[in-house]
Amino acid sequence: MLSALELARALEAGTLDIDALYDDIAARIAEQEGTIRAFVCHDVEAARQAARSARGPLMGLPLAVKDNIDTADFPSRYGSPIHENHRPAVDAATVALARRAGAAVLGKTVTTEFAFFQPGPTRNPHNLEHTPGGSSSGSAAGVAAGFFPLAIGTQTGGSVVRPASFCGVVGFKPSFDHLPTVGMKYFSWTLDTLGLFGKGVADVAFAGSALSARDWRVDAMVPMPPRIGVVEPQPWAQADDDMQGALETAIARATRAGASVSRVSLPPVFREAFAAHQTIQDFEATRALAAEVDAAPELISQVLMCTLEDGAAIEPAAYDAALEVARQARHALAEVMSQVDVLMMPSAPGAAPAGLASTGSSVFNRVWTLMGGPCVNVPGLATPGGLPLGIQLVGSYGRDRATLLAARWLEECLAKAG
Amino acid sequence: MLSALELARALEAGTLDIDALYDDIAARIAEQEGTIRAFVCHDVEAARQAARSARGPLMGLPLAVKDNIDTADFPSRYGSPIHENHRPAVDAATVALARRAGAAVLGKTVTTEFAFFQPGPTRNPHNLEHTPGGSSSGSAAGVAAGFFPLAIGTQTGGSVVRPASFCGVVGFKPSFDHLPTVGMKYFSWTLDTLGLFGKGVADVAFAGSALSARDWRVDAMVPMPPRIGVVEPQPWAQADDDMQGALETAIARATRAGASVSRVSLPPVFREAFAAHQTIQDFEATRALAAEVDAAPELISQVLMCTLEDGAAIEPAAYDAALEVARQARHALAEVMSQVDVLMMPSAPGAAPAGLASTGSSVFNRVWTLMGGPCVNVPGLATPGGLPLGIQLVGSYGRDRATLLAARWLEECLAKAG
Repeated sequence: MLSALELARALEAGTLDIDALYDDIAARIAEQEGTIRAFVCHDVEAARQAARSARGPLMGLPLAVKDNIDTADFPSRYGSPIHENHRPAVDAATVALARRAGAAVLGKTVTTEFAFFQPGPTRNPHNLEHTPGGSSSGSAAGVAAGFFPLAIGTQTGGSVVRPASFCGVVGFKPSFDHLPTVGMKYFSWTLDTLGLFGKGVADVAFAGSALSARDWRVDAMVPMPPRIGVVEPQPWAQADDDMQGALETAIARATRAGASVSRVSLPPVFREAFAAHQTIQDFEATRALAAEVDAAPELISQVLMCTLEDGAAIEPAAYDAALEVARQARHALAEVMSQVDVLMMPSAPGAAPAGLASTGSSVFNRVWTLMGGPCVNVPGLATPGGLPLGIQLVGSYGRDRATLLAARWLEECLAKAG
Repeated sequence: MLSALELARALEAGTLDIDALYDDIAARIAEQEGTIRAFVCHDVEAARQAARSARGPLMGLPLAVKDNIDTADFPSRYGSPIHENHRPAVDAATVALARRAGAAVLGKTVTTEFAFFQPGPTRNPHNLEHTPGGSSSGSAAGVAAGFFPLAIGTQTGGSVVRPASFCGVVGFKPSFDHLPTVGMKYFSWTLDTLGLFGKGVADVAFAGSALSARDWRVDAMVPMPPRIGVVEPQPWAQADDDMQGALETAIARATRAGASVSRVSLPPVFREAFAAHQTIQDFEATRALAAEVDAAPELISQVLMCTLEDGAAIEPAAYDAALEVARQARHALAEVMSQVDVLMMPSAPGAAPAGLASTGSSVFNRVWTLMGGPCVNVPGLATPGGLPLGIQLVGSYGRDRATLLAARWLEECLAKAG
C-alpha cells in the first residue's frame, strides 16, 4: 500500500520522480484492476501529465474520486445507468481544491447506485469473494490494492468508515461540511459528507489539510495518549465475536500504552437519534432524486425505489421532529465528550461479509454521521482468516485534529506486536 | 398581474382553459419581453403541451425558474458565459417537485452572474430605466409584467425579497432548506435558499404548499391581526425618506386595523451577525466556485473576482467564528420572537434605484437570510412617482405559515385606502 506522505516526501527530496511513481501505479493497475474493479474509468497517462505541472503540497500525487462527485475530465455516472452519458461542466468544489493543492485526478471509483446500497462490481483485495463495503467501494479497495495513495469518498450512513474497515485502510470522515460537498450528487443534504481514504492516519490528515486549509496534520509530533470513551453496546448495533475480540484487543493495548480508557453510556435520546437518521435520509433522498424517479423509474434498483417510496410517505412533521431529535442528541453528546477526547467502538459489525450482493451494514456509523463530528477508521487488526477489522474513533464536531491525533496514536498502538 | 390561485380556480371550474391561458401569456410576452428581458430562454408552446397533461394542485400553471437552478429541458447558464452551453442531465429537485405538483416550466429567468451582483439585461416593469433588483431579476420582473403567475428564485443575501420589493410583487423566502436546493448552482451552502414570487401572499403560500408538502396555505381563512415587532433602525441599514414614510404608513394602518405593534431592538450580537453573513458567504463562495475560477478566470466579472479574492483570504478560524456568531444570534432572536409573530422592517433601503448597472442593496435582508427563518416582501405602497416600496416581514424558523398569515393580513391592510 502507498503512503501519500512518504511519496510526497520522496518526490520533494528527488528520490522519486513522477514517471517512476506513475509507472509503478500503471503496473499495479494493469496487474490487478481486472480483478478488483475499483474504477469506473481512469487515465494514468492524463494523471501523469497533470502531475508533471502540479504545484502545491500534494506534489502531483494520484487521487481517485468517487463517482458520485463531479469531474470535468471524466464522466460522472453516480453509479446509475440514468447518468451513463453524463459529463459535468466543471469539477466539484473539493476536486478543484485538490487539483489546486497539487493532486492529479487518476480516475473515478465505483460507488453503489447514488451512494446507497445497490453494489457495483468492486471486490475486496483481501479476499476477492468478499465485499469491499460501500458506498465508497472503489475508493477503499483501490487504496488497499495500491492503485492510488489517496481517494475521496462520501458518507451518508457509513460509506467511508465501513469500506475502510473492510479493506484495512484509513477512512476519515471530517466534520460535516468541512470539505465542501458542492458538485457531489446529493442523497441527503443533512448527512452527505465528503471523506478521505489513505494508508495511514497521517496520510489522510495531510491530504485533508491541503484540501480544507485547516491545520489537521499529525505527522510532525508524537501524539499523547488520548482519553478514550468506549461506548457501551449500542442497543441497535451488535458486533460479532471477531469484532468484539478486536475491540477488546484495542482496549487492552490502548490501556497498556497509557491511554485513559473509560466506559461511557450514550444518553437515551440516542436511541431516537438512530431512528431519526433514517427518517432524515429517506425524506431528503425522496426529494434529492425526484427528477430521476420521474424521468427513468425503470432504471432505479428495487432496493432504492423501496426506500424512496418509504421516504415519500414521511410527513414533513415527522422529518422536522427527527431534525429536532438530532439537535437534542448533539447537545447530549457534548456533555459526554466533555470527559473524553474520542469515543471508540467497532467500525462495522464484523469483517467484510462474503459475497458481492451487499456492501454490509452501516449500523455502527449512521448515528455518528448524523452527529456531524469527525470519524476515523483505524486499521491494524484482523480475523484469524486475515480479513481486516477496523476500530472507529469519533470526535467532537470541529475537533478534527484532536480526533486524528488520537487515531494516529491508536494506529501505532495497534501496530505494535500484541 | 396574474394570480396563481385565481387561475387555478378558474381552470378547475372550467371557466378558463389551458389554451386561453397560454394564448394570453404568449401575447403578453410577445408584446413586452423585448423590453423587459425577464427570460434567458422560454418556450410557451412546450409549456402549453406540458400543461395539457399536467396533474396536481398547480393545474398546469406556467412557472418560471431562475437560471441558477437546473432544468433538463432548457440550458442552465447560471448567469455566466462559462456555462453558456451547459445543459443539465436532470431537473433540480424543486423543479421536479413543481412538475409533479402540476406546474409547466415556461422558461429560465435572468439571474445576475452566479446570483451575485453583476446584473443581466432585465428592466423594471414599473420604470424601464430602473433596476428590477437582483439576483432573481427575471423572476420578479416577469411576475410584475404578467408573463407568468409563479416563479422560483433564490436568496443568499436579499435576492428574493429585494427584487420583489422593487417590482411590487410578493417574494417569499421560506425557512432554510424547506424547499430543496439540490440542483441549484451553489454560491454559499449555509445561506442559499429557494424562494417564490407571485402576485399575492396567498399565491406564493399556495405554490409553496404544493412544492413542500407543508400546510402553508392561507387562502381559506381570515387571518387574525398579528403581533408585529417593528425593528428599531438597524445600525447598518438606513432607509431613505420614501421608504421610511412607507414603513410609518404600514405601522399606522396595521395599528388602526387592530394589530399589536411594538418596537423591538435587536440584541447586540446582531451587529456581529451582519458582518458574519459576509464572512460566511465569501468563504463559501470561494470554494463553491473554485472550479470556475481555475477553468476560466477571464470570464468572471471583476466584482465577483474581487469578492472571491477576499474570500480566499478568510481563514477557516474566522469562518468558524462567524458560524458561531450566527448560532448565537439565532438563539438571541428566539427570545425576541417569543413576544411577536413577525418582525417588520423595510424590504430595501428605498425604491428601485435608477440605472441597470447595479441591482441595489441587500443591506436589509442579509442578516435575515443568515437567521434562516421565513421572509416575505409585502407590496402595496409606492413612491409619489409610482415605484413600489415593499415591507418585509420576518418570522421564526419553521413558522412559515404564521409568517404568511401575518403577511396576508398586512397585504389586505395596505390594500385598503389609506
